[in-house]
Order: sequence, then structure tokens, then C-alpha cells
Amino acid sequence: MAKKTRNKLRVMMLGGQNEIGKNIAVIEYGANILVVDCGLGFPEEDMPGIDLVIPDFTYLEKNADKIVGVLITHGHEDHIGGIPYLLKELDVPVYGTKLTLGILENKLAEHKLLGKRRMITVTAGEKLNLGVFRVEFIHVNHSIADACCIAIKTPVGTVFHSGDFKLDVSPIDGEMMDLTRIGEYGREGVLLLMCESTNVDRPGFTPSERRVGSSLDSIFMTNHDKRIIIATFSSNVHRVQQIINTSVKFGRKVAVTGRSMINIIGAAVKLGYMDVPDGALIDISEIGRYPSEMITIVTTGSQGEPMSALYRMAFSEHSQVSLMPNDLVVLSSHAIPGNEKLVGRIINELYHRGVNVYHDEAEVHVSGHACQEELKLMHALTKPKFFMPIHGEYRHLMQHKELAEFMGMDPKNIFVCDIGQVLELDRRTCKRGGTVPAGRTLVDGYGVGDVGNIVLRDRRHLSQDGLIVVVATVDLDQMALISGPDIISRGFVYVRESEELLEEAKEIARRELSEMLDSGVMEWTQLKQRVRDALSKYLYNKTKRKPMILPVIMNV
Amino acid sequence: MAKKTRNKLRVMMLGGQNEIGKNIAVIEYGANILVVDCGLGFPEEDMPGIDLVIPDFTYLEKNADKIVGVLITHGHEDHIGGIPYLLKELDVPVYGTKLTLGILENKLAEHKLLGKRRMITVTAGEKLNLGVFRVEFIHVNHSIADACCIAIKTPVGTVFHSGDFKLDVSPIDGEMMDLTRIGEYGREGVLLLMCESTNVDRPGFTPSERRVGSSLDSIFMTNHDKRIIIATFSSNVHRVQQIINTSVKFGRKVAVTGRSMINIIGAAVKLGYMDVPDGALIDISEIGRYPSEMITIVTTGSQGEPMSALYRMAFSEHSQVSLMPNDLVVLSSHAIPGNEKLVGRIINELYHRGVNVYHDEAEVHVSGHACQEELKLMHALTKPKFFMPIHGEYRHLMQHKELAEFMGMDPKNIFVCDIGQVLELDRRTCKRGGTVPAGRTLVDGYGVGDVGNIVLRDRRHLSQDGLIVVVATVDLDQMALISGPDIISRGFVYVRESEELLEEAKEIARRELSEMLDSGVMEWTQLKQRVRDALSKYLYNKTKRKPMILPVIMNV
Repeated sequence: MAKKTRNKLRVMMLGGQNEIGKNIAVIEYGANILVVDCGLGFPEEDMPGIDLVIPDFTYLEKNADKIVGVLITHGHEDHIGGIPYLLKELDVPVYGTKLTLGILENKLAEHKLLGKRRMITVTAGEKLNLGVFRVEFIHVNHSIADACCIAIKTPVGTVFHSGDFKLDVSPIDGEMMDLTRIGEYGREGVLLLMCESTNVDRPGFTPSERRVGSSLDSIFMTNHDKRIIIATFSSNVHRVQQIINTSVKFGRKVAVTGRSMINIIGAAVKLGYMDVPDGALIDISEIGRYPSEMITIVTTGSQGEPMSALYRMAFSEHSQVSLMPNDLVVLSSHAIPGNEKLVGRIINELYHRGVNVYHDEAEVHVSGHACQEELKLMHALTKPKFFMPIHGEYRHLMQHKELAEFMGMDPKNIFVCDIGQVLELDRRTCKRGGTVPAGRTLVDGYGVGDVGNIVLRDRRHLSQDGLIVVVATVDLDQMALISGPDIISRGFVYVRESEELLEEAKEIARRELSEMLDSGVMEWTQLKQRVRDALSKYLYNKTKRKPMILPVIMNV
Repeated sequence: MAKKTRNKLRVMMLGGQNEIGKNIAVIEYGANILVVDCGLGFPEEDMPGIDLVIPDFTYLEKNADKIVGVLITHGHEDHIGGIPYLLKELDVPVYGTKLTLGILENKLAEHKLLGKRRMITVTAGEKLNLGVFRVEFIHVNHSIADACCIAIKTPVGTVFHSGDFKLDVSPIDGEMMDLTRIGEYGREGVLLLMCESTNVDRPGFTPSERRVGSSLDSIFMTNHDKRIIIATFSSNVHRVQQIINTSVKFGRKVAVTGRSMINIIGAAVKLGYMDVPDGALIDISEIGRYPSEMITIVTTGSQGEPMSALYRMAFSEHSQVSLMPNDLVVLSSHAIPGNEKLVGRIINELYHRGVNVYHDEAEVHVSGHACQEELKLMHALTKPKFFMPIHGEYRHLMQHKELAEFMGMDPKNIFVCDIGQVLELDRRTCKRGGTVPAGRTLVDGYGVGDVGNIVLRDRRHLSQDGLIVVVATVDLDQMALISGPDIISRGFVYVRESEELLEEAKEIARRELSEMLDSGVMEWTQLKQRVRDALSKYLYNKTKRKPMILPVIMNV
């Protein structure tokens, strides 16, 4: 069995399938493993208290000595955010373009890993030999600069990984996605296409980033008498470039606020990805020196994130920006599903401050992902033998399968895979192999993976109806209740208004304990279980609530 | 002061401003109070465990003897859901159209109030004398049948309450909104317009409900070989009527599943609001008797609600419907903000079952609320002297203010009010008066109002990082630690993996207690506080988490 698979190419996703975020792919041949991307995700509603979600690294840790490199397609959180956690466990080389590694370095510094791991800068068009693989990064357009797709030549054929992409024929940095190079790979023959699916439910083409620029021009024209505050994704370097361009055109200074925005703009300017005229950028502390209509503020918080700079401005907690009725706030962004209410809350608060708000997404935002026609273009250029849709919820993967069928692919050659599902390929065939460990590792504070299903279940239970602690001290030698029972409740009811309820509950606990002690029950589990059951039943009947009940019985 | 306001009209919202749901307005003149609508809302994310949110009835309870009637504009939850809770406290007459009261009766039955309160059926066009007020219900279009706006003649002028409405020139029940009657009130003179604001950010006109019918026709045509399952809002009687019409046209039987859907269709059929050909409706238990392509199933669950009929189908928990690859599920609905993820989860699960899913909202759903041009029409017809935008978050109210200014109103005559804010009017003036108690009353199980901010804060705290209970028994006569301390944790960390952490925590608690007892500290609060602080600091340093810490110290 081991012998047989040694000559097969194994491809799998450890994350980034059936959910959004924490994208990570594994390409394996014999004793050679390439990892493509390693992102993080944000917790779902049923994960209270969780800060981040990263991929399960079990498979990579077990096969650490095989890893010849980690390739990063671009610098978004869902593609690089898991890397510091991976590098804490493994010392493996990371390959990416200049800006991508620039952004990653900020993260490594936060995790005290900077300078301790191998970071290798690549440029689009450069070819790398990594183990048995020959790798080429190819330029694409996306909502962050310096994004790439990756062609991986393996002993049995080429795997083409799209990364995240869109086609922008008039991009801000002057470089259109390298359709030619992609087409050359297609002509040579692509064994497997792994292609992103984010916007597969949207017809047509995604508009050019440049369209946002003309909208900004007309907004600045109309609002020439106002201070303008623009919230956008911190990583969208080209968006920020356009905001700077328009500001300069209208004689405004630009100040930046929000930690991630400052970090990324800093990296982009340092590495030459932004073109900032001398004196155009000022520090946020200097905005008071200019008339307000000469100021543009670029800020984080476009997703309504609590404690982001825009949030702090809206709720008057920002130390350097106080909003005024003559301000215009522009949301140059799209609310990521799940964030709609947070964004709505900030907009309401901005209106409360008397601020003008512009949030017509169709005008001041464009997506960074390929719509249906661009996805078709990718399929038409690469002409893959086999296809695995990636980066999407299950419905997106299925819709991408339909799109590939529309492009003429045999449904039998399309593989919609769950995370951990292995595809085994040789020159002519592609089959589902077994599965490898894959899933979510939850990060809570310093803890990585120490919060699991039971802990989450308890947190959810506690959050629903709160907690009742019943305390009593018994003397098992005398079989007597020495102290208590007392009842402490948290998150259950107003204690003041429910004294009677809790008194009665105490009485029930006392009765149960006395009865058991009288009849000689000495077993802790049984004592606790009886008290818990009796109280649970009583409280549910009275309140229709099911608080967590913790009997604490001590022996002296 | 009391004398002065006796001749003033007082108007206020007790809910339905600055938030969505639990709409309720109060119109007061001397010893006469009219209540318009009394809805419920659903809990926000920061209200764990809460089932429902209803208005604060303090003001109405205090002025119970003044209430001459509760007028209901239509039968949606956010307009009638609070009525059973109000009627539990007060015995006041409720006025509404036939279908509205039919739906309300189901609710009163659930609360064991049916037949115990006065329900008075009115028809559009009928005039009522209620105290000093002369009231007329006027027909409007909306996503539920039998909806009305209400004109209230008061001693100082007419208050016009729009209810929720849209203009449908080709409605399913044959009756367009009564523009003529509204215009007549406008010609006579309207003192105050209270107008809904839900869709104020959408340009143009809301399409006719009839458009959904033609989309359904073409979907049924294309999918003639499939069983079709359609999820929609249970209260949208006209939508269900159209589904039945199309089904009959294509020779299908219609079965209904989901409790609220069965209740409302039952009421609508009984009261003559639906036209169901003989034999068209079958019981859900009978679907097996027909070929699947002859079946349409109408179901609840279009918002992804856990335990709704569609949810149970998707997760194979529905006792009577097993989904098959040849099924088509149509979502004839719009995801209410906040529900996008729930809806997405169901769609993913449906794809997992191999079911076909149609969820192009633009084709199979239309809104029930007025867009900008219809709102302008309402303003143009009523020509109010004063205007109070209602039913919307703050941003919607502000946008509605802008719209009214565009229609030529003096900004000084427009009043964007928070809930509880009183407007005082006479024939010529409108001013902000004081405020009355207004806010949210939280319903959790049987408890109405017994969960407040402290309980919610504790639930949120418990849900974030869980709980540590530290138990010890001391003998204060001897100043000695007799038993413990023991530590019990829930929702904090995997206990197995964190034994060392919890052992060390126990040791810290022991040290603190011993030190205090040795130095003669006997004060409970102090003993507990010291233990709590020491543990909190230690655990945060080690884990960056802040569990709730409950020290339980007993004296024997």
C-alpha cells in the first residue's frame, strides 16, 4: 500500500473547504510536501470566547520532515494568519512575494518569531526547485497587491492553484493578471486545477478597482467643504493609493488611523508598493493643524469591528479624532456575511453624531474575487484534466462544479472534496484516497487547541440560562449536614426579585441531602446527581429555564 | 403644567424606533389614550438566552384607565406579538381587521387569554369613535393580507399612521392601497404623519407581489420532473396563494408543513382570505400517495431558523419529508439582517443532500415595504404639517427625514424621536415634550422582565471564558482551613490538559486563605475578594483569559 501511493500525487485541503477562512492546501509526492497558504478564520457564533480559528496541523506535524516549503499566494489573513502558529511548531521555509512577506513579518514580530525562520522572497515569473517540484508564482489581480496564483510541476503533471484572483484590465499598479503565462501552462497541459469559488454565484465580471477612483473623485468634488473619513480593508493597498491620489488632487492631506492600517501601509510604502507624494501623508496627531476640509482620514473598522478606529470615533472613544457634524464618513467596503449588524450599529451611531454617511457599496467598493465569467476564463485558459473547486462553502463548491460542467468538463473529473479528503493522481487518473486529520484548532488567549467541544458546550450552556451553585458541607462519619446548603446564582434571574424561588430551591436541596444521608447514601456522584435532578426539575417547572447546576458538597 | 398639557395632543413611540421590531405608538389627549400596534422583537447577540423582547409597558400600566383602545395595523409579529403580554396586565379592547384578529387569536389561545379579552373586528373604511378620537382604518398593500394604515382625528387635528405598506397596483387580492381615501385626508389636512421607514434606502418602487407568480410559473415549467419545496414567510398569505395557483396550474397537490404556516393558512382559509380549489391542499402525511413530481411542499424556515420545518428537512430530522436528489428547494424570501449565516448553513446542507436549490431573491421574492418613490407618494398625498419617521433604525429615520425635506418640508417640522420621547402638538405647533419610560422588557422562558442588565452581563461573561468555583470550608472560631480549597471549572479549559494550571491555582487559593486566617481576617467579603483577585491575576497571566471566579467559603 505504501509502495503504491509512493508514485501517486496526493492533494488535499486542510482548511478552506466548506467554510470561509483558514485556507491551506497540501501537495504531496513521495517524501515531498508543499503547503500552499496557511490562513486563519474567525469564530462562529457557537464558539463563545474564541479569538481565532486555525487549521489542524496534525498531518503536517507528523510529516514535518517531508515539507519542502510553504508557498503563500497573497497577504490576506485567511491565507497567512495561521503561519505564525505553524512556524511555532515547525521550522520550514516560507516563500512569497515581497509585500506578502512584508505583511507576514509584522505578524512574526508579534509572535516573537521574526528573524528565527526562513523567509524567501520570490517574484512573479521566477521558478523554484523545491524537492521534486518545480514551482512558478504568476501575477494575478486581487484586493491586495502582489498576489499570485501558483503553478506546480510534479512528476505526474502540473497542479495549478488559482489563489484568490480577479481579472482587472485597468489595475492600479499597472499590471494585469498574467493571462499569457497561465495560458502557456494550459497549452502544456494542466493535470489538476484548484480554483477559488468565492464569487461563483455572481454573473459577469468583477469591475476594475479603478472604478472606485472615479466614484471617490465625484464624492470629493461634492463634499469639498467637509472633512472626509474613509473606512476600508487595511490590506487593500490599491484602494488606499486611490484615496491618496484623489486627496492630493483635491489639495488634502491624508492621515491614517488603526493599527493594521498603519502596519500595512507602512510595509507597502517601504517596499515600494505605494506612490505617496512628499508631504501628502501626515500623522494623525497633526490633523488639528489644517482646516478640516483639507483633511482625509483613512481608517480601519469597515466591518464594524468593536474597538477598531472607526468604532472608537463613532462612540467618541478615539483619542485623536472627534467627529463633527461637518464630517463625511465613507464606507469603502462590503460587509462580510455575519458582520451586517455590526456595520449597521456603527452607521446608526455615526448618524447620531450628526455625521454624514456614504455607504453605497456599488459606488465605492469592488470585490477582489473572480465572478462567473472570470472563472470561466481561468478554466478556458488552463484546460485542466481534473478540477477541484476550493475556497468556498459547500454551495459555492457545488456551483463551481456546475460552472466547470458548463465549460465542458466531464462531471467524473470534478472532485468536490471536504477538508482532509485526499485526492490521488497519476498522469491519467484522479481518485479519492483516504482522509487525513483536518479541522479546526481554536485559539483562545494564549491557548491553542485547549478549548474543545466540551468547553464550548459548557460556555453555550452557561450563556443561555446561567448558573446555580449549590454548596453544602456534610460530615460523612456522622452522616449529617453540617453547613448549607447555600445557593449562589449568576446569569439566572434577578436575585432580588426571585428570593422566594431560590429559598424554595434551597429547601429542596436540603430535603434531598437529608433524605440521602438518613438512608445512608455516601456516594458523591449519587449525592450530587440527586440534588442536580431535583433542582433542575423544580427550576424548569417554575421558570422554563435550564441553568447549569453545580452541586458542591464538601466533607469535613 | 398639568392644565397646559391637558389641551395638547401627546404622541410617542414606546418601541419601533432606533431598532427593528416591537413597534408600538401611543396617541394621547387628556384622559384618552390610543395604542397603535404592540409588537415583539427578537434578541440581539448580546442577549444570550433571551427568547423575545417586548416593549416596556410601565407607561401604559400607569395610565391604564385612560386607554380607549389598541389599534392593530396588520398581523405581523412585530406589530401583534406583544399584545398577549399587554393583555395579561390590562383588559383593554383591541381593534383590527378580520385576518389580523384571526392570527392574533392563535396567540391568545397559546397564552390562555382567548375569549377573555375584547376583540373588535373592523373593516377598512369603517369609522370608530373611541374616546375623543375618531378613527378610520384604510386599506394598504403589504406582505400580509388585510393590512391598514390608520387615520386618527383628534381635537387638534388628524394624526396619520402609515402602518407598514407598499403600493401594489396589481395585488393578489384585487385591492390596491386606497390612495383616494388617503388623499382625501390629505386634502382635509393632516397635522402629523407617522410613516414607516424600512426601505427608505432603496430607490424606486417595490415590485408587485404578482411578479413572484410569473417567476414561480417558469420555475415550475423548468422543473416539471421534480418535487418542489418552497420556503417562505408563514404570514405571506398572498405568496402562498400564488404557490397554490401555480401548483394547480401544473397539476400538483400542495402540502403544508411548519406550525406557524399551518396556523396562518388555516386562519386565512377559514376567514376567506385564500381561494383554494377543492382537493388542491393535502395533508403532509399524504405526500407519499402521489408521484413526487406532482407534489409542492410549502414550508417555514426561510430564515434558516433552527428547528423550523426546512431546517429539520435539511438535517434529516423531519418526520414526514425526506429530501431526495430529485427535489428542488426554492427560498422565496429575503434573509433578515443577522440571519444570513443561518440561511447559508441550510443551503450548504441542502447541497450536501444533493438537492437542487433555487435562491435568486430578485426572482422569487419582493419586499412588502415602500421604497423611496412610494414614501414620497405618501408624503405627497397626506401633505402633513408635521412629520415623525417611525419603524427603523436611526439611520433609516434620518434618511426618511432627508426624503421629507426633498419633498419640501421645513426641517423644523420633522421630528426624529427616540423611543419614549413625547411630541406635544396643538393645532399650530409641535414640540418635543419630556420623556416617558420606554425600553426593552426581556422574556426568558416564563420570566417577563426578570432578566436585566446584570444577569445578561453575567451570561456574557460566563460565555466568554467560563467559570472557576473555588470552595473551601473554614472554622472561624479556630481560624483554620478545614476542607479545600477545591476548584471546579466549567467552560474554561480542558481539565485533563490543564491539571497543572488548576493545581497551581488551588495552591494560590490555599496560600491566600491561610495567610488571611493567620492574620485574623474574618470578613467574608475580604476573604473572597483576595482569593478572587489572586486567582484572576494568575489565570490571566497564564492563559490571557478572564473566567468568572466564584469563591465559595463556608463556615462550620
